[in-house]
Amino acid sequence: MKRVQLDVLRKFAEDSMLASGLSAQDAAVVADVLTGTDAFGVMTHGNKNLLGYATKLQAGGLDPKAVPEIVCEGPAWAMIDGKNAMGMVTSCKAMNLAIEKAKMCGIAYVGVKNSCHFGAAGYYANLAAKAGMIGIAVSNTDPIMAVPNGCGVSVGSNPLAYAVPMAGGRSVFLDIALSNVAALKVIMAKEKGETLPPGCLVDEDGKGITDPTTFPAHSSLAPMAAHKGYGLAVLVEILAAVMTGAGMLSQVRSWNLDPATNNNAGHAFIAVDVSKMIPMDLFEARMQALADEIHAAKKAVGAQRIYLPGEMDWDKYDAAMKNGWIEIPDAMADSLKTLSEKNGLQIEWLS
Amino acid sequence: MKRVQLDVLRKFAEDSMLASGLSAQDAAVVADVLTGTDAFGVMTHGNKNLLGYATKLQAGGLDPKAVPEIVCEGPAWAMIDGKNAMGMVTSCKAMNLAIEKAKMCGIAYVGVKNSCHFGAAGYYANLAAKAGMIGIAVSNTDPIMAVPNGCGVSVGSNPLAYAVPMAGGRSVFLDIALSNVAALKVIMAKEKGETLPPGCLVDEDGKGITDPTTFPAHSSLAPMAAHKGYGLAVLVEILAAVMTGAGMLSQVRSWNLDPATNNNAGHAFIAVDVSKMIPMDLFEARMQALADEIHAAKKAVGAQRIYLPGEMDWDKYDAAMKNGWIEIPDAMADSLKTLSEKNGLQIEWLS
Repeated sequence: MKRVQLDVLRKFAEDSMLASGLSAQDAAVVADVLTGTDAFGVMTHGNKNLLGYATKLQAGGLDPKAVPEIVCEGPAWAMIDGKNAMGMVTSCKAMNLAIEKAKMCGIAYVGVKNSCHFGAAGYYANLAAKAGMIGIAVSNTDPIMAVPNGCGVSVGSNPLAYAVPMAGGRSVFLDIALSNVAALKVIMAKEKGETLPPGCLVDEDGKGITDPTTFPAHSSLAPMAAHKGYGLAVLVEILAAVMTGAGMLSQVRSWNLDPATNNNAGHAFIAVDVSKMIPMDLFEARMQALADEIHAAKKAVGAQRIYLPGEMDWDKYDAAMKNGWIEIPDAMADSLKTLSEKNGLQIEWLS
Repeated sequence: MKRVQLDVLRKFAEDSMLASGLSAQDAAVVADVLTGTDAFGVMTHGNKNLLGYATKLQAGGLDPKAVPEIVCEGPAWAMIDGKNAMGMVTSCKAMNLAIEKAKMCGIAYVGVKNSCHFGAAGYYANLAAKAGMIGIAVSNTDPIMAVPNGCGVSVGSNPLAYAVPMAGGRSVFLDIALSNVAALKVIMAKEKGETLPPGCLVDEDGKGITDPTTFPAHSSLAPMAAHKGYGLAVLVEILAAVMTGAGMLSQVRSWNLDPATNNNAGHAFIAVDVSKMIPMDLFEARMQALADEIHAAKKAVGAQRIYLPGEMDWDKYDAAMKNGWIEIPDAMADSLKTLSEKNGLQIEWLS
C-alpha cells in the first residue's frame, strides 16, 4: 500500500489527461470523477484506470477532442452522442442534463451512445443526490456473463447505481455489477489461490464451478441470483443501448484489452427531483426515520454495525477528506508509476 | 390440479368483488389483473388471493368504495392517495396516469400511498408495454428480510418488475422479489421436507441456514445476492414509500395475516415512451436483434432452450389464450372453493 495526497493524485490525473490531448475543462472533469471514486474507496474504478484511458486515447480508441452532442430531446428526456469522448465527460454532461430537465418535469431520462467505460456508475448517481435528487446510472459493458441455460459470454455485467440525498450531505447509495461477483474478485481469488463460493462462475458446459483459475479462458461470470440478475442486466442493456443506438451485447468491445477500437458502450441516467413532489424537509425526515429503523435492526451475533447502502463508502470518503490523503493498493500505484514514466509527469508519494 | 375456463375464473373474480361491495368498474379491473396474472402462470399472485382480499374487504382492512385520488402532480409525475382501495384499482389508475404523462414528457413517475398488496408487479409493467412503453412497477411489503449484519425482519422483499414492448405483442419482462428466494418457495420446501440452497435464510443469530422448517418463526429471508438485493430493496422502499407518504418498513402490515388493518403499502410506477425517443420500428428491430443474439447463445450441456426474461411466462400466457382454460394448483382451487362457500357464487370446473 502507498499513501498519496488527494490533491496530488487529482493533479496528476488532470495533467495526464491534458497531456493526452483533452481540453482543460474535460481533463478537470475526468480528474474529479476518478479521484472522487478513489476517495470513496472504489479503487478498481478510479485513477487505477488512468493508464488504460491514456493508452486508449493514444491508440485512437478514444477521441480526446470529441465534444458530446445532444442528438434529440424533449421535456423530460434527451439522447446524447458521446462521439467517442472519454466516458466521464459524456456521462457528467448527461446526468447534469437529466438534473436540469428533472427540475422542470420532476423526472428525466438521458441516454448516451458512442461512449466508453465511464468509471464508477455511483459517481453519476451521486451527482444527482448532490443536487437534491434521486439519481440512477447504468451502463452496458462488453459481454462477460453467461445467461441461464447458457455458457460462454452473452451479456455484460452491466453496472447499476442509485443515490438518494440525505440531510447533511451524505446519500444512500448502491453501485453494483449485475454478476454475482465482479470479475476482479474472481481474479483476486485466483491470485490468492482461493476457491469461490458456489454461484459465481459457469464452465464451458454451463455447469456452476468454484475454481477461479478457469477464468476467463474457460469460464464466465454467473448473473447475480441467476434469472434475476440476468433479467436486470437485460433491462440495463435496453435502457443504455437498445434505446440509445449504442452497441448492444457483442457489439461492445473490451475497453482496455482493445485500445485502438471504439468501446461503443451506452449509458442511461435518470434523475428524480424529490422537492417537486414532497417538501425536502419532510423527505429528509422520512429518510432519517428509514435510516434509524434500519440501523436499529437486531445485529447478527458478532456483527458490530448495520450499514445503510453506501454508508461504508461514505465513511471512507469522509476519512479521505479529513486526512487529505488515501492509501492505495500496490497494483494501482504501479499503474500510476507506469503512466508517469510514459507521460513524464511526476507523482509525489507520501510513503 | 384442476382445470377452469379463463372466462369462468374471471367472472367468478368479478362477481366476488361485486359481492364484496366494489363498483362494477373496480370489480372488472381486479378480475382483469388477477386472471391476467393467472394466465401468465404466476398463480401465487392471482385469484388464489381473492379469498384473502374478500376477507380483508369484509373485515375493514380494505375499503370497497374508496376512490383513489391524485393528491398532487406535475408534467411528468403525480402522487396518488389510494384511500385504502384494492391495490389493483389504484395501481392500474397510477400506471395509466404514468403512461399518459409519459406521452407528453417522454418519461413519468407516479407514486402511491395508502394502498394494499397489488398482486403481481409485472401486470402493471406490462400495461405500459402494451402501450408501447417501457414500464417499471415496484412496491414495498411488510418486513420479511434480514439486512446484512442483521437478523430478524427489517425490510420487505419489495417486488420489482419491468416490461419492454416487442413487435408482435409480447414483451421482455421480469417480475421478482428482492429476496434470494420467495417466502412461498421456502414454505413449499418445508412441506416437501427439502433443504434450501445456501443463502436463502438467516437464523435468529444472523447465520445463514438451509432448514426451511425454521421459517418464519425462527428465521427470515436473506436478500438476493446479499448487499445487492438489500440495496435494491431500500431503493424500492424510497421510491414507493419515502417519496409517497406510504408506510415505511415496519409501518407496513401483513396484508393477509391482519385482515382488519390497513396494509399501508406504497407503490411506484415509471413509464418511458419509447417512440418519443427512437422510431418504434427501429426500436423493435433493435429489440429483435437483442433477442436473436441472446437466443443464439451457446447452450449449457443438457439445456433445451435459452429464454428471454418473461418468455416462459408468455409461452404460458399464449397457451392459456389458445386453450381458453388453465390448470390451477389444488391450494388455489381450495381457496376459490372456500370463497365460493362464503359468498354463495358458483365456479364451474372443467375437471
